[in-house]
Amino acid sequence: MDLLRVKKGFQLAGVDTGSTPGFLGKKKDSTGALDEGAGVFSHLQEMFYANSRDGDPRKILLVLQAMDTAGKGGIVRHVVGSVDPQGIQYTSFKAPTKAELTHDFLWRIRRHAPRNGMIGVFDRSHYEDVLIARVRSLAPAAEIEKRYDQINQFEQELADDSTTIVKVMLHISSDEQKSRLAERLARPDKYWKYNPGDVDERMRWDGYQEAYQVAIDRTSTGAAPWFVVPADHKWYARLAVQHLLIDALQRMHLDWPAATFDVAAEQARLAAS
Amino acid sequence: MDLLRVKKGFQLAGVDTGSTPGFLGKKKDSTGALDEGAGVFSHLQEMFYANSRDGDPRKILLVLQAMDTAGKGGIVRHVVGSVDPQGIQYTSFKAPTKAELTHDFLWRIRRHAPRNGMIGVFDRSHYEDVLIARVRSLAPAAEIEKRYDQINQFEQELADDSTTIVKVMLHISSDEQKSRLAERLARPDKYWKYNPGDVDERMRWDGYQEAYQVAIDRTSTGAAPWFVVPADHKWYARLAVQHLLIDALQRMHLDWPAATFDVAAEQARLAAS
Repeated sequence: MDLLRVKKGFQLAGVDTGSTPGFLGKKKDSTGALDEGAGVFSHLQEMFYANSRDGDPRKILLVLQAMDTAGKGGIVRHVVGSVDPQGIQYTSFKAPTKAELTHDFLWRIRRHAPRNGMIGVFDRSHYEDVLIARVRSLAPAAEIEKRYDQINQFEQELADDSTTIVKVMLHISSDEQKSRLAERLARPDKYWKYNPGDVDERMRWDGYQEAYQVAIDRTSTGAAPWFVVPADHKWYARLAVQHLLIDALQRMHLDWPAATFDVAAEQARLAAS
Repeated sequence: MDLLRVKKGFQLAGVDTGSTPGFLGKKKDSTGALDEGAGVFSHLQEMFYANSRDGDPRKILLVLQAMDTAGKGGIVRHVVGSVDPQGIQYTSFKAPTKAELTHDFLWRIRRHAPRNGMIGVFDRSHYEDVLIARVRSLAPAAEIEKRYDQINQFEQELADDSTTIVKVMLHISSDEQKSRLAERLARPDKYWKYNPGDVDERMRWDGYQEAYQVAIDRTSTGAAPWFVVPADHKWYARLAVQHLLIDALQRMHLDWPAATFDVAAEQARLAAS
């Protein structure tokens, strides 16, 4: 999935949100591909978890950022949801509480860093502190300016602590968002997903695109790369994120851990029990 | 699933661990039944979660207890894993740490009580403090004696706070455990699930059965009933727990929450955006 990795000179505005890089098939082929990927992902995840029981300190952190309706929830449900819940640490970051605001912006984030053998999933993250915070001037400009470096340091720390970091921006067009919000307003079983505030944020679309561009420019590092995933096609975005996670696991060259006990001796004890 | 609910005079030793109460089919029918149930469960769980966004304070707590190899992990993976990870709060309780031991035994448990709209899953729980603690005399008898009442009070508190509590003991036979442990010792991809301590606990089988009987006798309450699920057939145990959760949700008589905003006004704002 190196195709989706942000490289020098990357321009968010230049991405075709309706494209499907690396996937030659159509929507009708995607279900089979997602199911097949789920099997591979689930198998690798189990080996990953198994090794942690044997002292392997590695962990994975998936950061999901996007404009409203871009499909974060669907990724969690259909991609993350295909592996054993015991191996997932999912955290949804809402607007910080008063208590959280008395701390540094990374304080609440650090507490949810994944443990050994776990796949941590951040549904929104510390990036909100340079996105909505910038667009709505929730902090002084100089303070926000500092945060990019603080984020890079924080992510480097995680990487030094054996964390593979995969940062994903699901990228949709303004038109696609409009039609998804309209659908939520047209279906009573979707009302609960609609928030009038979504339209307020939508009215600041350009501001958000600029804030994403700056954030991506400032925080695309070797330790914690960004992947911008065209997301007008939900099926494509799901496949792409699934493959980013599979890639992360495959690069670990995992195998089942060896027995940490004498197998024959244990078989004898068991037989006698 | 009232069939599995513990009633007055219940005798653990009288349960046929190979039986399949309430299910007339065979193993070959179970996959279809589990898939069908997964659809129902997932739909109800989404409505449940949606209502919490609208102020509904209800939550569900599934407590899983069992002898080693009885299938807790499979329940989490195949039953809990069929709904959106965003709606699950999974906690695995291991032996308490030194820091945890400086607190009351319920201290670490309380911190993981499910939030509104969530299904909390306890993989082991405060019951270990009257099970292994009793079998291995980890606390004075008088202390353990007090714990049953403390557990009942704690669970009553949760119930008063709108929690539907479903306590499940997966019940296997000693022979079935032996063959499952033997399988773990025969397959290198299962070594990581094997712990020599499992055989030590196995040697105290009767002590555990007695401790379960006492715990079930003392803590089967209206607020927090026990369900003993015959678990020699993994497929049956999964179906049974799935249906216990579906029952809990169906008794809530859920519907999609009404819009908390003026739909027409929002449609107009969106159209103008």
